[in-house]
Amino acid sequence: MSTPQTLTIYTPSGVLPTSAGLKLAAKRLKACGFEVQVDETASAKHQRFGGSDEQRLAAIHRVAAAAPSVALASRGGYGLTRLLDAIDWPLLARSVEQGTRWVGYSDLTALQMGMLAHTKTPSWCGPHAVDDFGRETLDEVTPDCFMEAMSGELEAVGFKTEAGFDGLSVQGVLWGGNLTVLCSLLGTPHWPKVKGGLLFLEDVNEHPYRVERMLLQLHQAGVLHAQKAVLIGRISDYKPSPLDRGYTIKAMLAHLRSVCATPVLTGLPFGHVPTKVTMPFGRKVQLVVEGRDAFVGW
Amino acid sequence: MSTPQTLTIYTPSGVLPTSAGLKLAAKRLKACGFEVQVDETASAKHQRFGGSDEQRLAAIHRVAAAAPSVALASRGGYGLTRLLDAIDWPLLARSVEQGTRWVGYSDLTALQMGMLAHTKTPSWCGPHAVDDFGRETLDEVTPDCFMEAMSGELEAVGFKTEAGFDGLSVQGVLWGGNLTVLCSLLGTPHWPKVKGGLLFLEDVNEHPYRVERMLLQLHQAGVLHAQKAVLIGRISDYKPSPLDRGYTIKAMLAHLRSVCATPVLTGLPFGHVPTKVTMPFGRKVQLVVEGRDAFVGW
Repeated sequence: MSTPQTLTIYTPSGVLPTSAGLKLAAKRLKACGFEVQVDETASAKHQRFGGSDEQRLAAIHRVAAAAPSVALASRGGYGLTRLLDAIDWPLLARSVEQGTRWVGYSDLTALQMGMLAHTKTPSWCGPHAVDDFGRETLDEVTPDCFMEAMSGELEAVGFKTEAGFDGLSVQGVLWGGNLTVLCSLLGTPHWPKVKGGLLFLEDVNEHPYRVERMLLQLHQAGVLHAQKAVLIGRISDYKPSPLDRGYTIKAMLAHLRSVCATPVLTGLPFGHVPTKVTMPFGRKVQLVVEGRDAFVGW
Repeated sequence: MSTPQTLTIYTPSGVLPTSAGLKLAAKRLKACGFEVQVDETASAKHQRFGGSDEQRLAAIHRVAAAAPSVALASRGGYGLTRLLDAIDWPLLARSVEQGTRWVGYSDLTALQMGMLAHTKTPSWCGPHAVDDFGRETLDEVTPDCFMEAMSGELEAVGFKTEAGFDGLSVQGVLWGGNLTVLCSLLGTPHWPKVKGGLLFLEDVNEHPYRVERMLLQLHQAGVLHAQKAVLIGRISDYKPSPLDRGYTIKAMLAHLRSVCATPVLTGLPFGHVPTKVTMPFGRKVQLVVEGRDAFVGW
């Protein structure tokens, strides 16, 4: 990069457990070449939230008005749902027109879905400042992929998927995120009605039967049928039950595929795990599968 | 009762952990005066389900065709979501016209919602055979309330609510159930579009922030606004987080009430707890509050 990119870290959702992660994240992102700014209420605390609803809403609007190159959430948690009805979506859209890349995952799914629903504005799925750049041991893939995506060099991500999709080649709007947060928007004005898209999904702390229930909701609501492909990321950190008796993620996916004609591919490196790719959200991409190698390009 | 009522125990959702609970439940329900029948696949096992999807669907249809006085689910768990698109709703409606009372809660919320959505058919919220009548120590209230409701003697349930609703008197269709299961139907054809109703909600193992997210979904989807009252039952068995910092069920309800004009009353004795009332689902009721005493009558 010739001109340094500006990057603002802000807190739209959950409270930061400590200040150490934020400091480490800012330091590392500076070392990556960003001109880093930490929003004035990034460390605010109100109950389990990173500041009161008013503070977090003001932070989002302040970042949008400043329009840095990158608007990076400190972490997820829970909190954006409370703000959706009050967010100034055109203000966020204008920041994106000025070049801002809004990046996040998990609770940020709500912001990304809202941007797409209200103003057809794209954003980026990718790491969080504290959760990814503020962790003791930096992941080997996540920062590089993020840096390349932010500089505009990255044009595709690749991953291993299972057999059975060789030759698949489809185009559509890439959208999705955290399955629980995504489903919590169904039926609300913050749900973007994407047709012919590529829907990617991940979740954490959710037993496969709960993941199945949400996927079946999307199926019964006609959402899956309207997509060209479903990309399953990491389903992590759930606790199996002694009553599962062979009911696994594999069994869950087998059931989903028995009722849903849309191709469902696993293996996307995205979710509540250290290694996560950075990809566009709300932008047209192409999915190509060769053997077991899948590529999402834009 | 002069003529004994017939009661069939069937398994539409999760597998029974042991056979002891089912035997004890059948014995106790016989002692209550019911002519008890245990459906032929009530103890079937397929992974975490009480039989394969085909077996459980057949069981529901078999019970509906036989039209006993009471169709009592053995337990909840997860499984009805898989069957919703295949259930013969008119068959269930005909059983109700012949006098069958379908009773349950938790996963059965999906069945009750579907009956109301597809054929405007009422059912009953109340105990499960194994979970309630098959437990070692029988609850003191649950069986009596259930018996009175099934014999047609029960005309109201009462409970203590908080101050602030003295004089409230509203009429509407009583509906609701398990919040997670209920929200998993939003946007699907199995969602009954109830206007001017009384919506009751309970949940288990869900942190208050997750309960809040679901309540806000119902709010943002316009569901709460369309109701005359919301009755909150038991929010049980969740694990607080060290990051809650004073965020409690009370704080959650305070937020909900700050955005939602519909009266939100707590104290309904219903949920994943031993003491639960039996109430009609999908039937017009009256809610009256005198001081802190609330009554739901039909």
